[in-house]
Amino acid sequence: MDARSIIARLRHQETPTAAELTWFAQGLADMTVSDAQAGAFAMGVCLSKLNDEGRVALTLAMRDSGRVLDWSGLGKPVLDKHSTGGVGDCVSLVLAPALAACGVAVPMISGRGLGHTGGTLDKMEAIPGVTTALDDTRLRQAVEQAGAVIVGATADIAPADKRLYAIRDVTGTVESLDLITASILSKKLAAGLDGLILDVKVGSGAFMKSMDEAEALATALVQTANAAGCKTSALVTDMNQPLVPALGNALEVAEVLRVLTGENRGRILELCAILGGVLLDNAGLVPSVDAGAEQIAKAIRSGAAAEAFGRMIAVQGGPLSFVDDWSRFLPEATVIREVQATEAGFVTAIDGEALGLAVVALGGGRQIETDVIDPAVGYSDLVELGAKVTRGTTLGVVHASRPEQANAAERALRAAITIGAKAPAVPDLICARVD
Amino acid sequence: MDARSIIARLRHQETPTAAELTWFAQGLADMTVSDAQAGAFAMGVCLSKLNDEGRVALTLAMRDSGRVLDWSGLGKPVLDKHSTGGVGDCVSLVLAPALAACGVAVPMISGRGLGHTGGTLDKMEAIPGVTTALDDTRLRQAVEQAGAVIVGATADIAPADKRLYAIRDVTGTVESLDLITASILSKKLAAGLDGLILDVKVGSGAFMKSMDEAEALATALVQTANAAGCKTSALVTDMNQPLVPALGNALEVAEVLRVLTGENRGRILELCAILGGVLLDNAGLVPSVDAGAEQIAKAIRSGAAAEAFGRMIAVQGGPLSFVDDWSRFLPEATVIREVQATEAGFVTAIDGEALGLAVVALGGGRQIETDVIDPAVGYSDLVELGAKVTRGTTLGVVHASRPEQANAAERALRAAITIGAKAPAVPDLICARVD
Repeated sequence: MDARSIIARLRHQETPTAAELTWFAQGLADMTVSDAQAGAFAMGVCLSKLNDEGRVALTLAMRDSGRVLDWSGLGKPVLDKHSTGGVGDCVSLVLAPALAACGVAVPMISGRGLGHTGGTLDKMEAIPGVTTALDDTRLRQAVEQAGAVIVGATADIAPADKRLYAIRDVTGTVESLDLITASILSKKLAAGLDGLILDVKVGSGAFMKSMDEAEALATALVQTANAAGCKTSALVTDMNQPLVPALGNALEVAEVLRVLTGENRGRILELCAILGGVLLDNAGLVPSVDAGAEQIAKAIRSGAAAEAFGRMIAVQGGPLSFVDDWSRFLPEATVIREVQATEAGFVTAIDGEALGLAVVALGGGRQIETDVIDPAVGYSDLVELGAKVTRGTTLGVVHASRPEQANAAERALRAAITIGAKAPAVPDLICARVD
Repeated sequence: MDARSIIARLRHQETPTAAELTWFAQGLADMTVSDAQAGAFAMGVCLSKLNDEGRVALTLAMRDSGRVLDWSGLGKPVLDKHSTGGVGDCVSLVLAPALAACGVAVPMISGRGLGHTGGTLDKMEAIPGVTTALDDTRLRQAVEQAGAVIVGATADIAPADKRLYAIRDVTGTVESLDLITASILSKKLAAGLDGLILDVKVGSGAFMKSMDEAEALATALVQTANAAGCKTSALVTDMNQPLVPALGNALEVAEVLRVLTGENRGRILELCAILGGVLLDNAGLVPSVDAGAEQIAKAIRSGAAAEAFGRMIAVQGGPLSFVDDWSRFLPEATVIREVQATEAGFVTAIDGEALGLAVVALGGGRQIETDVIDPAVGYSDLVELGAKVTRGTTLGVVHASRPEQANAAERALRAAITIGAKAPAVPDLICARVD
């Protein structure tokens, strides 16, 4: 077997065999496959597309290019959630401890911010002392102690994906259903999960702007994950406005704490409940999705999820009293400025992508991989889609490190929020379920 | 402009703009474009294809990635021929000096053997002392002195093509009309030609086995070269049998000398005359193709071409008396074995590709780039397509360095020649002309 003939199959618009894709993924990991071959392969998959079997084979091959975690002996179901990325989407930080409070193990391997979307690891690291780099031994201990942990992938998790991802980034080959599916699932499946729920985002703040695209991705992910032996469902959910009224790492952590401590509820609680409900139901831990959703909601209302969050932060190196004293620990921006509406009407649209990019510009995300993030910056107190505003109503509060940056962020906020004369139809939070 | 977005256009099945292709070719040459990007680009072109303008733009951009030779002040038309490759195809070694004898300058930049096909540079180097590596100053002097020279491309001729060619080779992206066209023509156009004739081979010994493929390539080459400002025509010519009754570097040089010295004529003379005739006619040097062909034939019959050949060999470092004493100078194989027919009938097919590969196996071509060629080995006295044979008729003579290799070459020769009961229709030498 050799890279050239495997790639040539794609040129002839055929799907390589499972054995060939396994060989290629291994070659990506061990550098037998050259950069040029990886680039040609990525473009070949983009243009020729794989069939369903090929997509499963590539996913499994990329999973098996590194180590697969083994949770045998843990005595708990191992479940996880993955979101395709949005703005103000801090569901993981609420749902992981809520699941832990329900007796589930959640070894969540997360990522960093990408483009305009926030990253769960960046949010975790907004909490002083928290590390998201745990080796195997510490990861196992942390899951045993805290139930849920949120960490980055170690170098030996799906190394073929790491290499191919970096190459896709520079070769304009990110947007491929096959490659996105294999990339997401190879890492998730390497975590050794019993079950997975996918939150496929659609709307102004998501990568997928249309329902068709989102459903196609949800279907590819669910089919592939189930074929790979991991019980998986997906919900396609609305991302036409931030899930919490804040964007930015520390500001979103604050929102998470407000939800976990009962100070605030809202769309994020509803979404956590349904995602967790489907996950618990699929795992056979509850008699129905509704019962599962109620169990999650109860874990949050009762404070059990907050306790689990505290344990997670503690085992990952954060302050022991973080849940009680969180506002004391989170970093604050130096320039905090309220932005008010200058006209009356209804909020008819919120450009989530523009807001996400404005946070990156504030220093809350990365322009290039080596950028250091300022966790304090972003937006808070964001107005909701459909809200009625008058002159002087707060559209949001800018948190910046310098006045010039605050000016730019204010302009971006005003441009991202459309105010119209008529109340808009606010999209349903849950758009579709795919099994 | 950046590589990622240029490649992404191909993913969207668009042709990048001329400015973008120019940027990309320059990036290939100066290493701004990474291997991964080059691989993705090659596959993108294979699958999405370029439009006519894009193919011209890529060709010009690759030509301009390095130096373009300038023959101003030479006082002669600068013409050249290029063949897409065949077996027993030593047209260049006859036609270049014949054109020189007609007052034309021929700075022929040639290549080495590729796959089963022979390479003109390898044939030149079968002559003791001959070098095909001339720097600019020596190349100009050589053309001024000898009229015709046959050399390899220097590092600064179309460097983008050199890099992309190496990458296509390992990424299974060789077979693309756009990339083949740009590769061939970028080098030829960098030679600063006034006119070009293309010999597009079709048949068992060519890369293109069908007329459709050959005509498509001829059309793409001719359109692109003319759009790039070089007056160009193509002949699609038959390669269902070797052009001379020999394969192998020194053995083909011997055939060339037999033609130039009048000892032998045949199909190669006919082909040289028509190729040269079209070239001279296109350049306005003769009133018609027939007149041009007659001028070439006369140059060969009169010995003027042989004299020009002698000058070419001399300026390139070969023996001064080569044309007179060629049999003394050419290397001879140690094992020479006649292969005779074991049945009677007609030669109905000759598998040129198999014969070419057998010569490579004898050491007459390269399996890998660093292989050293044995110029003496190959086949001579090959039977013609359509010939009537009886038991004992010579099918060919094997020239090998060791008996085991001769055995293999004998088996290959027998397998490559099909003998049937009925005389076959022998294809016309000239199949089509494309302007």
